Amino acid sequence: MTHSLDVAVVGATGSVGEALVQVLEERKLPVGTLHALAGADSVGQTASYKGRNLRVRDVQAFDFSTVQLVFFAAGQSVTAQFIDKARAAGCMVIDLSGGLPPEQAPRVVPEVNPQALEHLGAPYVVTSPSSVSVALGCVLAALRQVVNVERINLTACLAVSSRGREGVSELARQTAELLNGRAFEPQVFGRQMAFNMLAQVDQPDLQGHGLLEKRVAGELKELLVEPKLRMSINCIQAPVFFGDSLSLSLQTTKAVDLAKVCDALQRAPALECVEFEDYPTVVGDAVGQDVIYVGRVRAGLDDPAELNLWIASDNVRKGAAINAVQLAELLIKHYL
Amino acid sequence: MTHSLDVAVVGATGSVGEALVQVLEERKLPVGTLHALAGADSVGQTASYKGRNLRVRDVQAFDFSTVQLVFFAAGQSVTAQFIDKARAAGCMVIDLSGGLPPEQAPRVVPEVNPQALEHLGAPYVVTSPSSVSVALGCVLAALRQVVNVERINLTACLAVSSRGREGVSELARQTAELLNGRAFEPQVFGRQMAFNMLAQVDQPDLQGHGLLEKRVAGELKELLVEPKLRMSINCIQAPVFFGDSLSLSLQTTKAVDLAKVCDALQRAPALECVEFEDYPTVVGDAVGQDVIYVGRVRAGLDDPAELNLWIASDNVRKGAAINAVQLAELLIKHYL
Ligand SMILES: NC(=O)c1ccc[n+]([C@@H]2O[C@H](COP(=O)([O-])OP(=O)(O)OC[C@H]3O[C@@H](n4cnc5c(N)ncnc54)[C@H](OP(=O)(O)O)[C@@H]3O)[C@@H](O)[C@H]2O)c1
Ligand SMILES: NC(=O)c1ccc[n+]([C@@H]2O[C@H](COP(=O)([O-])OP(=O)(O)OC[C@H]3O[C@@H](n4cnc5c(N)ncnc54)[C@H](OP(=O)(O)O)[C@@H]3O)[C@@H](O)[C@H]2O)c1
Repeated sequence: MTHSLDVAVVGATGSVGEALVQVLEERKLPVGTLHALAGADSVGQTASYKGRNLRVRDVQAFDFSTVQLVFFAAGQSVTAQFIDKARAAGCMVIDLSGGLPPEQAPRVVPEVNPQALEHLGAPYVVTSPSSVSVALGCVLAALRQVVNVERINLTACLAVSSRGREGVSELARQTAELLNGRAFEPQVFGRQMAFNMLAQVDQPDLQGHGLLEKRVAGELKELLVEPKLRMSINCIQAPVFFGDSLSLSLQTTKAVDLAKVCDALQRAPALECVEFEDYPTVVGDAVGQDVIYVGRVRAGLDDPAELNLWIASDNVRKGAAINAVQLAELLIKHYL
Repeated sequence: MTHSLDVAVVGATGSVGEALVQVLEERKLPVGTLHALAGADSVGQTASYKGRNLRVRDVQAFDFSTVQLVFFAAGQSVTAQFIDKARAAGCMVIDLSGGLPPEQAPRVVPEVNPQALEHLGAPYVVTSPSSVSVALGCVLAALRQVVNVERINLTACLAVSSRGREGVSELARQTAELLNGRAFEPQVFGRQMAFNMLAQVDQPDLQGHGLLEKRVAGELKELLVEPKLRMSINCIQAPVFFGDSLSLSLQTTKAVDLAKVCDALQRAPALECVEFEDYPTVVGDAVGQDVIYVGRVRAGLDDPAELNLWIASDNVRKGAAINAVQLAELLIKHYL
């Protein structure tokens, strides 16, 4: 970690990109020059970094050979368009879009499967998984020391920021129009998002499974190295700006020792286990934090081998930016 | 059904009470005089019924012997306080508070266990279950013809109207304050409800199970006459004014035939099964309706014996008022 390295953030004007630039400033990554990149429309905007205003530049015109590390936080099509350039230039890459095949870009959460980074070949390309998988992966990794999970039942209530800046402004706009008694034309979510819950967060396949639902299932199997784990994954959209709220029920192979469970959760570095009388929420606890909050830890109503809990996590910060920068730290440690 | 009968609604100024009065007007129940009752503070208010304004009267001063049917929709303590008077006066009683022991007041959803009403003794007292159990009971009753359910995993996102008028005005107030950039002191929910998801809807017991969670589990076992059904019930509070959104995953004993499932749901009188490409929501579909909407019907990601679906139901109308009036219709049919 004696070298410094030049870094590009693709999608620097987005929700995740902005958080990435902030986390890069906060953490000890030895950044030389930071390049804030986005689409042509964003040229002229600035990104705030270490008290200075970085000029946002067009990724199209960017010379990737001037940096050693690239974060892709601009959607799958943008990653697809520029990944070869970044690879050809020998950059280490952290992709947040989830569009690369796992064989080319293993999905890693440092608290869960850091070993997956130990035998990468150059150029080093890693995927930072979806925010739901980051939160769930951290919790399941902590739990596997004390319970043997047979089946996962998840309902994940996603914030509108999972749809980026657009999602955030759409909820704000709809809410304001409704409170003022005005009609509005739904955009982004295709229907009323304010004061409503949507059954899905993207377009399901012919079997009815959503893209993110399948992605989370695949990511968890890879993160936990448990290809046979059984999972019911339900991703729904909530009228919340920031933070994923996960309602989780696990079936395990024997009666759960709740004291041990709480202890294991409490000892995990990325987790904060909230006392029994209290419970965490995204707005009050998780948002803006680097840890994932767990609460309502309890056995089943009539099955002592069932473990129920609630997770609140900042999708943009912990679920994306922090995880991506932690991955960069590991790549640097192993390969620079 | 040739007699007409005089009816009292206790809690007529509340969310459920108001819906009850409206449903009594809409349906063919042969109501003679309707008495709108509430607490002393509400005396002087009016309830709109058949184009007239009923004066709201104090339940404390009410002579129950002047009516033959009473709806209790004012909370468990009010039911507890007046149930003996109503019984002593020989009234048929529909309780919506859930506070009476099942031995004294069986929990009934007409679409699920109408047989439970057939051998009641006078005075006839019946409980209309929680809105979550009404919705889930109707869906499970339709499904049991085509699947053999072994375990239920439910995350129920409850509307703030599950906390009555108070809950509704609290969400409206908090949202308005936030949009105007003003601070507010949380009431009712004890924390920020606007743009937030709360992990629980009431105070859990020492094992961590919420009151409503236990109530739903007990009600479902009774409704379906399946005392051994395994259930993970998670009730969470969503920033939605009206309508329960249920994310449901069922484990069954063999590969699910989805065509049969959809057919069974579609044939059930109280259900509307939404086409594959679409999905229902509370705001767009369920609220104001007498049917329960089901969508996202799909097998498991890696378990063909798993059945996932989504339910949207009006907690106040279908989940309370309609069910209660349907119960009254059955009592009248059997016992008047
Ligand atoms: N939000 C989350 O919770 C979350 C969590 C984990 C991962 N992710 C992933 O992170 C990525 C960014 O998400 P976000 O929430 O930050 O979205 P966002 O707020 O919509 O931001 C998108 C960013 O991508 C840029 N961009 C879009 N099209 C581009 C193009 N053709 N060329 C160059 N830049 C382009 C945008 O800049 P312009 O406006 O200039 O085009 C903007 O900077 C996505 O892949 C998302 O799946 C998001
Ligand atoms: N909301 C739902 O989704 C739902 C669904 C199923 C069942 N329920 C049950 O239905 C009942 C009513 O719920 P709600 O949502 O309608 O609540 P609400 O909007 O708060 O209304 C409560 C009603 O009860 C009356 N009340 C309260 N204290 C009273 C007292 N001491 N004496 C006489 N009347 C009293 C209130 O009148 P005053 O203001 O005059 O006191 C008001 O009419 C509750 O037991 C609830 O559990 C509700």
